[in-house]
Amino acid sequence: MCEKMIIAIQGERGSYSEQAATELLGFEVEVSCCEYFEEVFERTANKNTTHCLIPIENSLSGSIHKNYDLLLRHNLKITREINLPVQHSLVVAPGVKFEEIKVVISHPVALDQCEKFFEKNPQLTKQSAYDTSGSVKRIMEEGLKSSAAIAGERAAEHHEAEILMAGIQDNPENFTRFFLLASKLEMGENRNKTSIVFSFKNTPGALFKCLSVFALRDIDLYKIESRPIPGRAWEYLFYMDFLGNPEEEAPRNALRHLSELTEFLEVLGSYPRDAKLEKKRI
Amino acid sequence: MCEKMIIAIQGERGSYSEQAATELLGFEVEVSCCEYFEEVFERTANKNTTHCLIPIENSLSGSIHKNYDLLLRHNLKITREINLPVQHSLVVAPGVKFEEIKVVISHPVALDQCEKFFEKNPQLTKQSAYDTSGSVKRIMEEGLKSSAAIAGERAAEHHEAEILMAGIQDNPENFTRFFLLASKLEMGENRNKTSIVFSFKNTPGALFKCLSVFALRDIDLYKIESRPIPGRAWEYLFYMDFLGNPEEEAPRNALRHLSELTEFLEVLGSYPRDAKLEKKRI
Repeated sequence: MCEKMIIAIQGERGSYSEQAATELLGFEVEVSCCEYFEEVFERTANKNTTHCLIPIENSLSGSIHKNYDLLLRHNLKITREINLPVQHSLVVAPGVKFEEIKVVISHPVALDQCEKFFEKNPQLTKQSAYDTSGSVKRIMEEGLKSSAAIAGERAAEHHEAEILMAGIQDNPENFTRFFLLASKLEMGENRNKTSIVFSFKNTPGALFKCLSVFALRDIDLYKIESRPIPGRAWEYLFYMDFLGNPEEEAPRNALRHLSELTEFLEVLGSYPRDAKLEKKRI
Repeated sequence: MCEKMIIAIQGERGSYSEQAATELLGFEVEVSCCEYFEEVFERTANKNTTHCLIPIENSLSGSIHKNYDLLLRHNLKITREINLPVQHSLVVAPGVKFEEIKVVISHPVALDQCEKFFEKNPQLTKQSAYDTSGSVKRIMEEGLKSSAAIAGERAAEHHEAEILMAGIQDNPENFTRFFLLASKLEMGENRNKTSIVFSFKNTPGALFKCLSVFALRDIDLYKIESRPIPGRAWEYLFYMDFLGNPEEEAPRNALRHLSELTEFLEVLGSYPRDAKLEKKRI
């Protein structure tokens, strides 16, 4: 019998993370809401949930570096990716008019992505919160009349709030990429993309040589991200995504070749590429 | 006659940025304090200050990505770099005892870097502020008896506050790298390190080819950082530091070669390498 899936997410129900979970796994999926990303990872590592869904990168604000660090600290495997279009709305308690609003509450990244809206409306004060959907929850629970939230449509629906303005973000091309992580290895089909992390020996041209193991085998790369190694000032870990699966010949050879050049190398998971929004090769 | 230097910094006097400014330029340097990094860049771009000093990277928490984005948006040139050792202290108003403290105020990055201290003292609540030195200013101005700040020694001295505990950070190897930016090009001596930013044409192995222009000429790289290109989902800009100066033959040839592979390429500045803490090659 199939184990029931429970997905830990950061933020409240109605958040973009919940939206990504249902798009990936269907409307019946059960989510477990956490305030912090540490908690999201821990619940899954401790088997309190079967999976967790974490944002890893936004097409405007860049990588969620904290989650790269947490990926390394916990032994969880990436089993799926999804690119979610992000559309921010101005959400209020039913009946509240735009003229009444003085404060706008949301996650700091969402506030940053609506900079032009705030420039046009200098009377509004920004206030940071830990989650977009959580801001909607707050204006509803506290019955705030002079506050609005910035959140997705789904958050407004979930909390029975009203959308006053839709699409208030600066840039319509706004996508967040999420990873579904599992506490145990899952061998699904079409696992044609792989994420790894490595650090290399201190030799000249080290990064060039590490990239060569892919280039010499015509393996496409999609992403590279560097993070500091704590306690070893100015040394870096590199996270990389490539096309292929370590069970195929060329990627397997590339990883063996890479292991000759690295001090540390770990496969974070192989998963089906989300082709809805094709990432450019690098 | 020499123009008087005025340095825009983020945060209050006594902050790590001011400390970096005086280590680089001497105790007489005049600073102009700003709340936000945008303001720091704008004051210098608008010639209200001759320079600005910005943190670009911390050896534990990684790059200050916002400042990479702002570097590109403003036409300022990097003229110096400095690596500053960061030592966090627990700072209180004179006479306050540890037992009285309930809340600890600081910049979120400083709070994160003292995680073990908070684990050992679960009775303490963290509170975010925009600046380390600004938190000390607040506890002093408001005469707070149940709050402490986390900040550097210099912030305590500047505000005549008391250091209750020194070195409370998790990791003693904590350095922040700063850039001194000027509104006009300065041709100082020993400009042996260069920072560039580029984006490349969408071809397979593009990043590998871009790194090859340095590797084939034995030019050492120290840092690579990728940032999203707004409005072009999942395309990246790459920031890179290398050893050398575009006026020398090999770096000049490498940059010409790189321009064949890139859509966009800009030199952000050449400056003397801070050899106090040697960065590893990548």
